[in-house]
Amino acid sequence: MARKKIAVFFGERSFEHDISILTGLQAIKVIDQTKFETFPIYVDLERNWWTGEGLLNQSNYPLGKKLPKDIRRVRFVVGEGKGYIETVSKGIFRNNNREYFDAAFLAFHGDFGETGAFQGLMESSGIPYTGCRMLASTVFMNKVTTKQICRSLGIPVLPEIILERPEDKVFFDVKEITKGVDLPFPLCVKPLHLGSSIAVSKVTTKEELDSAVIKVFALDNQAIIEPFVENLEEYNISVTRVFGEIRCSVIERPTRKNSILAFSDKYQSGGKGKGIKGGKVCSFSELNGLLGLSREYNPGELTSEQREKIISWSKALFLAMDGRGEPRIDFLCNSKTGELWLGEVNPIPGSFGYYLWENSDPKINFTKLLTGLIEEAFKEAGKKSLAYGTLKDNRIFEDK
Amino acid sequence: MARKKIAVFFGERSFEHDISILTGLQAIKVIDQTKFETFPIYVDLERNWWTGEGLLNQSNYPLGKKLPKDIRRVRFVVGEGKGYIETVSKGIFRNNNREYFDAAFLAFHGDFGETGAFQGLMESSGIPYTGCRMLASTVFMNKVTTKQICRSLGIPVLPEIILERPEDKVFFDVKEITKGVDLPFPLCVKPLHLGSSIAVSKVTTKEELDSAVIKVFALDNQAIIEPFVENLEEYNISVTRVFGEIRCSVIERPTRKNSILAFSDKYQSGGKGKGIKGGKVCSFSELNGLLGLSREYNPGELTSEQREKIISWSKALFLAMDGRGEPRIDFLCNSKTGELWLGEVNPIPGSFGYYLWENSDPKINFTKLLTGLIEEAFKEAGKKSLAYGTLKDNRIFEDK
Repeated sequence: MARKKIAVFFGERSFEHDISILTGLQAIKVIDQTKFETFPIYVDLERNWWTGEGLLNQSNYPLGKKLPKDIRRVRFVVGEGKGYIETVSKGIFRNNNREYFDAAFLAFHGDFGETGAFQGLMESSGIPYTGCRMLASTVFMNKVTTKQICRSLGIPVLPEIILERPEDKVFFDVKEITKGVDLPFPLCVKPLHLGSSIAVSKVTTKEELDSAVIKVFALDNQAIIEPFVENLEEYNISVTRVFGEIRCSVIERPTRKNSILAFSDKYQSGGKGKGIKGGKVCSFSELNGLLGLSREYNPGELTSEQREKIISWSKALFLAMDGRGEPRIDFLCNSKTGELWLGEVNPIPGSFGYYLWENSDPKINFTKLLTGLIEEAFKEAGKKSLAYGTLKDNRIFEDK
Repeated sequence: MARKKIAVFFGERSFEHDISILTGLQAIKVIDQTKFETFPIYVDLERNWWTGEGLLNQSNYPLGKKLPKDIRRVRFVVGEGKGYIETVSKGIFRNNNREYFDAAFLAFHGDFGETGAFQGLMESSGIPYTGCRMLASTVFMNKVTTKQICRSLGIPVLPEIILERPEDKVFFDVKEITKGVDLPFPLCVKPLHLGSSIAVSKVTTKEELDSAVIKVFALDNQAIIEPFVENLEEYNISVTRVFGEIRCSVIERPTRKNSILAFSDKYQSGGKGKGIKGGKVCSFSELNGLLGLSREYNPGELTSEQREKIISWSKALFLAMDGRGEPRIDFLCNSKTGELWLGEVNPIPGSFGYYLWENSDPKINFTKLLTGLIEEAFKEAGKKSLAYGTLKDNRIFEDK
């Protein structure tokens, strides 16, 4: 049987553009080549699409004006049945080089590929795609909607205050906006939509609050303010249905050097924020090393009751949002009182959270995890496809 | 100043395909031509895109094999910066006839244009579009998620049971699936995602329940079962921010000849379900006449307390979902006890619910309503556009 052709997408107009490149290249290395034929599609910050072997070489990023010969522009065509790609060529002679692919493997973080938009593009053009559908993607990428769903399910979450950026995003009186914030310090200030700890601050005074809100409003229309949990420990878990019945991964406790890991700490090297030198650093474990991040699996301090809560709440939220893929769900814990809150959900976690599944019992290796994601994409597309006969039954206009 | 160029989209691979054609043609007639230059884009059931003056003539639907000369194929190109359309031409000589437009006016009902998918396509290609964003679209088109959000906001909704279609959608034992339904009859059975009363049944026995569920599973993966409200009256209202501050329309009570209006009653003429004869019937008021639908505005039986509930709940839900456009929110009422429940939300209501705004105080006419929708589309796109500078601040790879 011919291998299915899988386009691996990464990049996009996102604050997490570069980390998505790493995730995409990682996926291409790991996907089972005996089952699937992969090729990369890189979406740059200006929404141009690229393909070619040269994209697999990290040192080619960011794409400069002088392109390697093995990187070329492509475009995606909607409106002629199923969507397809074709090479962008100039001049009046243009080849009809349309190329179909069987499924889209999404390795995006943040806009527009983790938030539901790219999912919508795939839905609109009839192409199977991996991971959460639009509903779960949009809800999980919105921190307050996620909390509202949790409340309806009886899952504990922290209280929050939402602040809206004024119409005039440059000249505004931040004091006027924050004056209604009546939660006691310390507080945590975050953008409502962005991931990867971008513009997340712990604040202890009104002045810090104001400047944290200004920082968020440079990036997002809405800020979310929550109590900062004392004696904070974090616990992460992943949930999936790609192996049939719903199941959870092992629980991990990530250890961070700061109480909040800023994006620059998380992904960029220390040297004046100038980025990873020469594009040499790539692997997840190397990144971890850079970040001083370490992980403990199945952490011993959790009681069996706490474990059960984390597992049952994660499953309940995943099911309520009709989840797909294997989102990572992050919990906050006051390690002294033992209280737990569901924090947020990452529809496409960094490195697909493969380390959670590799440390689960039974262990699922990274390649098998990605096979599961791709097989689920085909299954979902099959469910969604509607019968033309039935569609026509509901028509008003008579056939001629 | 040059008029903005607005593509009016309708059709799509939807159970409400034909009614969307009517809505689209209606919009083109009503949009203020002194401010906006409009052209139609029709998406057919097979996902082919069409444009041309001939689309404005109802008698051309469904498009036959012999096309009028003034209807031609177009396609939409993603991956070269902002999305654009171009004429589909055959042969090796292909003109580079790309055409940009300023905004998309969405006149879809159901898949894929009211559900968030088409919205995602527009987001992914940087094109302003009217109405709800992806979050509100996907949530409102999912009846149970809408209810979960209502519960978190303290807005009363009916209890429900969700049934999942089995993997094998043809051979399954419906009795096995419905055996856990423990709500007392009469019940209301609906598809979880579809609008326009498609496959909605009132059932009073286990046998009727089973056959109603089978009917739903021909169209949707999930069925939602709720108590059938006794002494049912329905009330509808629309909410918007397109005129600045959030505001609600007048409340209407639609009067129907049956307790549940099936899709065939709602949109198709009585004559053997064969559809509207010769494509002659078009206007909303003519459709209403056909359907035996009448409306009472500001119905006198509602107490001021009930009115206030309808208004405050509608505003709260709209704000929580960061609503745009002017969705119509439908309430159910037991007219004897006075109890109210929020029923469902239509992100793009039939005829844009213009009659609600024309009967509001102050009155807003249809043309002004559509101008508001288009202006909001531009405003939203402005908010969303991210600063390239800021995007580049978060990069890992060093510029060469």
